[in-house]
Amino acid sequence: MSFFDYFRSRKTRSAQLAKERLQVIVARERVHRDGPDYLPRLQEEILNVIRKYVQVDEDAVSIQLERDGNCEVLELNVTLPEQRV
Amino acid sequence: MSFFDYFRSRKTRSAQLAKERLQVIVARERVHRDGPDYLPRLQEEILNVIRKYVQVDEDAVSIQLERDGNCEVLELNVTLPEQRV
Repeated sequence: MSFFDYFRSRKTRSAQLAKERLQVIVARERVHRDGPDYLPRLQEEILNVIRKYVQVDEDAVSIQLERDGNCEVLELNVTLPEQRV
Repeated sequence: MSFFDYFRSRKTRSAQLAKERLQVIVARERVHRDGPDYLPRLQEEILNVIRKYVQVDEDAVSIQLERDGNCEVLELNVTLPEQRV
């Protein structure tokens, strides 16, 4: 399954609104469990970068952070307003 | 299939080196085909943000931009050096 299929399957689940959507996934695979946990800060900075290009409302962002063994996956889903800045 | 499975299936394909890896995926779903194409610039800025946290060598980054209908998927794969900054 390609990422396109994954993205589309998510779309089907989320009621298929005719809105622009942006999804950012940051996945980190660690070799060692120690080391700094920078994903939450990275997430905030990526969101700030996205805000330069599109208008993002606070309540239009959903954030999920999942950990599974040495994998960490941070998922940001942004629904964009019809009118772009 | 969850994103974890997707990430793991990619790992299997890429020879399972014992290295830290970071993957950033930005998927954009457009309603209208016009509108600005900001993904390439966003890609560069996200990479700069990542560089604040980890040392990223130029040749350790692979970038793919795929378009399929109204979906655009930008994928950055970064292999991190053992030594973090």
